[in-house]
This record gives sequence, C-alpha cells and structure tokens, in this order.
Amino acid sequence: MSPVATRGPVRVVGTGLLGTSIGLALRALDVDVVLADPSRTSLGIALDMGAGRLPAADDAPVALVVVAAPPDVVAEVVAAELEAHPDAVVTDVASVKTSVRDAVAASGADLTRYVGSHPMAGRERSGPTAAQAELFAARPWVIVDSGSSSDEALLTVRSLAVDLGAVPVTMDAEGHDDAVATVSHLPQVAASLVAARLVAARPEALALAGQGLRDTTRIAASDARLWASILAANAGPVRELLVGLREDLDRVVAALDEGSLAGLARVVEAGNLGVARIPGKHGGAPRAFEVVTVLVPDTPGELARLLTEIGDAGINLEDLLLEHSPGQPVGLASLSVLPGSTGQLVEVLANRGWRIAGEEQHA
Amino acid sequence: MSPVATRGPVRVVGTGLLGTSIGLALRALDVDVVLADPSRTSLGIALDMGAGRLPAADDAPVALVVVAAPPDVVAEVVAAELEAHPDAVVTDVASVKTSVRDAVAASGADLTRYVGSHPMAGRERSGPTAAQAELFAARPWVIVDSGSSSDEALLTVRSLAVDLGAVPVTMDAEGHDDAVATVSHLPQVAASLVAARLVAARPEALALAGQGLRDTTRIAASDARLWASILAANAGPVRELLVGLREDLDRVVAALDEGSLAGLARVVEAGNLGVARIPGKHGGAPRAFEVVTVLVPDTPGELARLLTEIGDAGINLEDLLLEHSPGQPVGLASLSVLPGSTGQLVEVLANRGWRIAGEEQHA
Repeated sequence: MSPVATRGPVRVVGTGLLGTSIGLALRALDVDVVLADPSRTSLGIALDMGAGRLPAADDAPVALVVVAAPPDVVAEVVAAELEAHPDAVVTDVASVKTSVRDAVAASGADLTRYVGSHPMAGRERSGPTAAQAELFAARPWVIVDSGSSSDEALLTVRSLAVDLGAVPVTMDAEGHDDAVATVSHLPQVAASLVAARLVAARPEALALAGQGLRDTTRIAASDARLWASILAANAGPVRELLVGLREDLDRVVAALDEGSLAGLARVVEAGNLGVARIPGKHGGAPRAFEVVTVLVPDTPGELARLLTEIGDAGINLEDLLLEHSPGQPVGLASLSVLPGSTGQLVEVLANRGWRIAGEEQHA
Repeated sequence: MSPVATRGPVRVVGTGLLGTSIGLALRALDVDVVLADPSRTSLGIALDMGAGRLPAADDAPVALVVVAAPPDVVAEVVAAELEAHPDAVVTDVASVKTSVRDAVAASGADLTRYVGSHPMAGRERSGPTAAQAELFAARPWVIVDSGSSSDEALLTVRSLAVDLGAVPVTMDAEGHDDAVATVSHLPQVAASLVAARLVAARPEALALAGQGLRDTTRIAASDARLWASILAANAGPVRELLVGLREDLDRVVAALDEGSLAGLARVVEAGNLGVARIPGKHGGAPRAFEVVTVLVPDTPGELARLLTEIGDAGINLEDLLLEHSPGQPVGLASLSVLPGSTGQLVEVLANRGWRIAGEEQHA
C-alpha cells in the first residue's frame, strides 16, 4: 500500500452511492470520516456500513469537505460548507461543473478553498447500499479549478482522488462539461432514442436482436430522473451536439428519399472516422486488435477452461466479449489480442479442440 | 454429429464471406459443393480454401443454388439461376428481402422454387479469406417465403440453415425488413451519427470515454459502402424509424430549451421501456441479472484464474464484460449471475482475495 496523503477528519455531506463509497474508501485507509445527510435513513445505513461516524463536540477542525448532495442542491450545500468550515477545502462530486461553480461564485463564497470534482464512476445502483470502497479504482476523476482555487486546495482534492485509486485529470469547468456532453450525455440520449423505438417493435423483430442492438442500447436502462437533471444542468453543450446530430440525421433521411448511396456512405464514413478517435486501452492511441471468435458451451467452467488454456500459452487478452445466442445453449466468445498473436491463439485453440467461429481485424 | 439433410451438388454463386463460409460448412459435412464467381481471384481463393470445386461436364443436376452475390445484382442472379437450373431450389442470402423478392417476381421467374434467406452472421471482415465453416453456428437464419414458395423449397432451405448450425426463423419479406430496420439498421445509423460527433471532439474529452461511449459506437466502424447499399435497399422501414427518432430528438432539444425536467425524463423513461423488451439470453424473456464487478490485474492468466475459481465453485456466469481503464494496468470484470447467486459469488471472490468494485442489479 502506498502512503495516504489525505488528512482527517474528512466531512462527507450526502450519503448516497458516491458519498458512502468515498467514506468507505477513506475508512479503509484509516482516515477519520464524519458523515452528514438530511435523510436519517440514508445516514443510518452509511454509519452501519462503516463509512464514517457522527460529528462530535471535540472534533478537530475539518480539513476537507466532500459534498455528494443531489445535483439541484449541491451549489447551495457547497456555499454553506465553505462558510461553516473556514479552514477546510470543499469539493463536490456532481457530474456537471459549470453551473455548480457559477452558483457557488454567485453566493459570494470563498472560491480559493473550493475545487470541483467529478469521479467518473457511474452506472451503479444508487443509494448507500450500493456503495463500495473500490468504486473509484482505475476510473478518471476530473478536477476542476474554481478559477480562484488555491494550489493547496487543488492538491488536496487531487490527493483524495489518488488515495481512492482514481486517475486524476485536470480540466476547466467548461472543458469538463463539453467533454462529458460528448462522451457521456450524447451517448445516453442516443441510446434512449434508439431504445424508445423498441417500445412499438414486434416481439418477432426483437427476437432477431444481436450484439449491435444490445451494445447501442445498454445504457438506455439508466435512471430517468437522475439523467433529466444531468441533461438540464448541461443543456448548452448537449443541445449543440444534438443539433449537429439532427443535421446529420436529416441528411440520412434526405439520402434515403433520393436513393443517394454516396449520401448514405458519407454518414457511415464520418462514423468510421469518429469511432477511430476513441482512445484504446490504457489511455494510449487507438490500436487495431485482432479478434478470434470461439464457440463456448454454456456450462460452468467452460469459459474458465478456455481462458486458462489461453493464459497457459502466455497469450494476453486485450478484450473479451461474450455474445449469447437465441435459443441455443452455446455462447460466442470474442477474444481480442494484439496483432501478430492471432496465429498462435488459433493454433492453441485448435489443438485443444475449441471450435473457432471467426477471425477478424477490429479497430 | 446429427445426420445431414442437404443433398449435393449445392451450387454457391458468389465466393465472398457468406458464400465461401457456406461452402466450407457444407464441405465439412461432406456435401458436394460447386462454386461460381465472376471474380477469378475470389473464386481461386475459395477453391484453395476447400470451399468447393469447379463445375464438371458430367455433374448431376444441382439440387440447391445459394446466391451470395452483392446486394445490387442478387435478384438478377437469382432469376438467371432459376432459369439455368430448372429442378433446383434457389435461395439468396441478402440482408434485405422485399426488394429482392419483388425484382425476382418481376423477372417472371418460377417463384415456387425461390426462397429468400438471411443468415444473421455479419460484423466480420468481408471477402473469402474471412470465411469460416462455423460462421452461422447459433445465429438466427431468417427464411422468407416468396409468396409462392413450395413446401419442398422451404424445407430445403430450412435444412440448409439447420445443417449449418443456425437457428431457422420463418418470416415474410416485409416482416423481415421491418425487423432488421429496427434491430440492425437503426442501431447502425445511430452509432454512426454519435460517432460522427467525435470527429470534432478534443482529445482531452475523448480521454474520458467510458464503456457507455464505446458500447454505443462499436458498430460505427462498419463498412460504409456495404451499409449504404443495405440502407438504400430498406429505405422505407429505415426512414420511418428515423423520422420517429427525429421527433423524439426534437422533443429532447425543446425540453433542454425549456429546462423541462419532465420532458427530459420522458425520453429516458421511454428508453427504459424499450431496452427492457430486448429478449434475454437463450431467447427467453428478459431476466434481471445481478452483476458483481471485480478488479482484474492486466497480466496473462489473471482473468482465467478468476473464472476458474468461479467455475470451481459451481457458479455459472450469465454474462461477462471486461472494461478497461485509462492509464491503469488493471481491468474491471463485470460478472453477471442469476439473482440469488450474488452472495455465494461475493463470498468465493472475497475468500480468494479478489477486490470487488461493485454489486448491482441489472436488467
């Protein structure tokens, strides 16, 4: 274990998923954590889970306050905490940053001690019962200067992120909001729009669903109320992207009306260019993997046997995707390996009697 | 091995990915296959791969012709084959069915011997070198009555699908085209539209990309020319879906302009309903899985060790998703299990020293 930079007591305001997870993670590092939440139920669960303790009269001054309140009240809570704890650094963990920073600034609070942050660890159930100390492990944690944040305040929040196993990334509020509009809010809206088309689809049509539909709509299962508030708080950047998307969509409809193959190909080509820009594993440049697809009987231990045999051969999988089949007790495992490893992988699999369903190059 | 119903010689016209794969699969079952392709290069590769042989003067009459020609010429080739082989059943494997059937009918060909089909086995590289005998294993294979297909012709094509390991699904041409517009063409357009927005994104924004963006844009890497012709051939159903999507998109933009949380939530809720309709594994009703997320060091054998230990405990994984982290040599494995298995899984993992990053319920 590496040394811990964060000094207690840390005050966590809001004991939902993020606040409770932060408490659990800090307690696992032996940092003193004080919890607060207007909901006695939520607070009670977080206390029972060991995410921290109640404040005491003789507590040392709080060094750091983490505001993990709902998006609509977070700025107000940040301003109140800056006022109540005049020596503390205060951060929040809301997923939109410009509106929070502007509201905190408008309150007249001390911006030198305020730093925005956004641990990108969503997609879990909400509430304290879903909390986990490891929630932030290996996830980006965006750190946002208030415009007047002191170096000390910025370092305090960066240390919190690193202590919790996250990867700190420094951005300004506008840059953060533009970025999450692109990589998070736009895909969410698109997934919801595609999934909404399925409401009226016939069951026979849905029975043909393959991995493409499943992939594009997976995040459409997200919480509607939470997402409504996120989208509303980042309306400007999200709107701009959606208007651009609508212009391209109109081009597709026009190309369908005209039977223009060139017009249709242009949109797919633009998508080719865009998807190729998503960074590859480990934050590096996108890298072409080769993919070998193998049939895996759907019985306990078969997938493990497959991966054991690959591991025994010293081949490292870059990615693994399981695809299930309608009405068949067999799955397809797509194994991504570095270019050049395919030949060895295919040989190992064939020698062990695995049935290979395909080889492809994959961006 | 189950007995083989398909009788040779089977004539395969078009030795791209699908035609060559069909040849390889039939040859593996010892069925005589005759190959044809206007491209000598493609034909030569398919012959070298063992997908079949050249026709000979003393060949027995062909019992079945499979037309695997490019979409724009498939109807013309089907009509010519019906004429040239008056005792043969003729099928094609194009991914849009109404336009092909109408064009074959307009040619005055014998529709009793024609059956449309669509093996749903895409996403691979194109061309004969990408062909695999197992390409169709466990995939749906849609079988489409011409409107006048004889029972014998329908059974011949159904037997082909079953012999090749696919799951035959009977639909009419319009039903098929509506279905693939929903489950395949719409997600393709949506993925391309989202990915096209990434062309202008800043690298710092793309560095925050998580699994949501990767999932929604994975199929945006597809071949542009192929997709332009598929979309053009299914313009009606695709257009209708895109116009519906555009209306919902306009509602999102209006809700952003008005700051209407209810309006934004409605779109996400519609997506919730739609995604819940996608059938679960094995073609059954969607079933809620529980998901346990585990940190996996990115070294050969670690994922295999994890799955071996799960298999040894007799726990069957329903799904497995690997998620990579920016800048970190560690991955997150999301393990889906049946409700009720989570407790046992968490205990097994904890006993073996695995770090658990989350538990959730997942539709």
